[in-house]
Amino acid sequence: MTNVRVNGFSISVDGFGAGPEQSLEQPLGVGAEALHGWLRDSKTFHTMLGKEGGSTGIDETFAARSMAGMGAWILGRNMFGPVRGAWPDDSWKGWWGDTPPYGCPVFVLTHHPRAPLEMKGGTVFHFVTGGADEALARAKEAAAGRDVRVGGGAATIRQYLQAGAIDEMHLAISPVVLGRGESLFAGIDLLALGYTVTEQTQGEQAMHVVLRKE
Amino acid sequence: MTNVRVNGFSISVDGFGAGPEQSLEQPLGVGAEALHGWLRDSKTFHTMLGKEGGSTGIDETFAARSMAGMGAWILGRNMFGPVRGAWPDDSWKGWWGDTPPYGCPVFVLTHHPRAPLEMKGGTVFHFVTGGADEALARAKEAAAGRDVRVGGGAATIRQYLQAGAIDEMHLAISPVVLGRGESLFAGIDLLALGYTVTEQTQGEQAMHVVLRKE
Repeated sequence: MTNVRVNGFSISVDGFGAGPEQSLEQPLGVGAEALHGWLRDSKTFHTMLGKEGGSTGIDETFAARSMAGMGAWILGRNMFGPVRGAWPDDSWKGWWGDTPPYGCPVFVLTHHPRAPLEMKGGTVFHFVTGGADEALARAKEAAAGRDVRVGGGAATIRQYLQAGAIDEMHLAISPVVLGRGESLFAGIDLLALGYTVTEQTQGEQAMHVVLRKE
Repeated sequence: MTNVRVNGFSISVDGFGAGPEQSLEQPLGVGAEALHGWLRDSKTFHTMLGKEGGSTGIDETFAARSMAGMGAWILGRNMFGPVRGAWPDDSWKGWWGDTPPYGCPVFVLTHHPRAPLEMKGGTVFHFVTGGADEALARAKEAAAGRDVRVGGGAATIRQYLQAGAIDEMHLAISPVVLGRGESLFAGIDLLALGYTVTEQTQGEQAMHVVLRKE
């Protein structure tokens, strides 16, 4: 059965999934690089970038879990790239080079139509203009029994949380405060939505928490 | 030198220090009992209640630290008791029996004057009607070089945080979501206030984070 999952989503101690003042130079906002150290240093992430090495401890276990079993992804447009407004041409093909790490269909939420983009390694980017529900329906169908991962960013996860669509959510709480930025949970009643904490572990660079919807 | 500290303050994964619908029966609000398991089961807490036993691991280390070195405390009125409005008489003497665990002066924020209340074991409750600044000044003086602990609740800690008065803050993030309640950090820019995370440890029942103001 398909689970809709959030995995490896990093938040600060004060609950922000991205810092303030996001820009092309700082796509995660000011200070937010520090959120992702646990992932950036992992063997899984090294492998995704075609590099040797990387950590092999608890953080790596969660990094590996975050990529396993996925049949489709959903990304907010800003996760796909910095281009805003209508697509000027097809030159932007994501942050990940010719062979993105997904290896499956990826549904990108956008207001601006664009033809599907087939990459190497099995990744196909589909640009969905019909909204979050349409993206989820298409992703579930494409996943064919494997899981759907909602990759982010914070606004996209909040949208699916509020719709009750997320079955499981793994968060990495990094030892940093951001002060301002995109709060993941502000105004969202996780208890009313049916979530409970099912797992809590200290990794080398972050605390891992898994929430599951009953 | 006196440090003004918050210690052992429990928050949920979604950032709440107390649940919704606080009442005499549920002074911490609905669901919030689960926030405090790490403390309730500790040897330090058992000792405070005159009981044998209790946990002796990492959670206990933080519980013991939370009580050590204090020369004075500051409590919001709701931490002292459920009485609202003017004091009808002197019958309410706190939640803790004849010998409260403080053993030093405790400054209770209230709008309603009341004579100091001397308890066994060195605890004296002073009722401060002049506001947070006055309470802090009196607590610092009374602490005579030892530390001042701001005990809570969330609203009292928020007030002192926003005033830049807290030097160090130990939080216990418990594996629970509350959905609604009193958010500890909502609208507070910890980075602008100068806080950084100096310590992060997984205890048996909670994740411990220490923030320090530069």
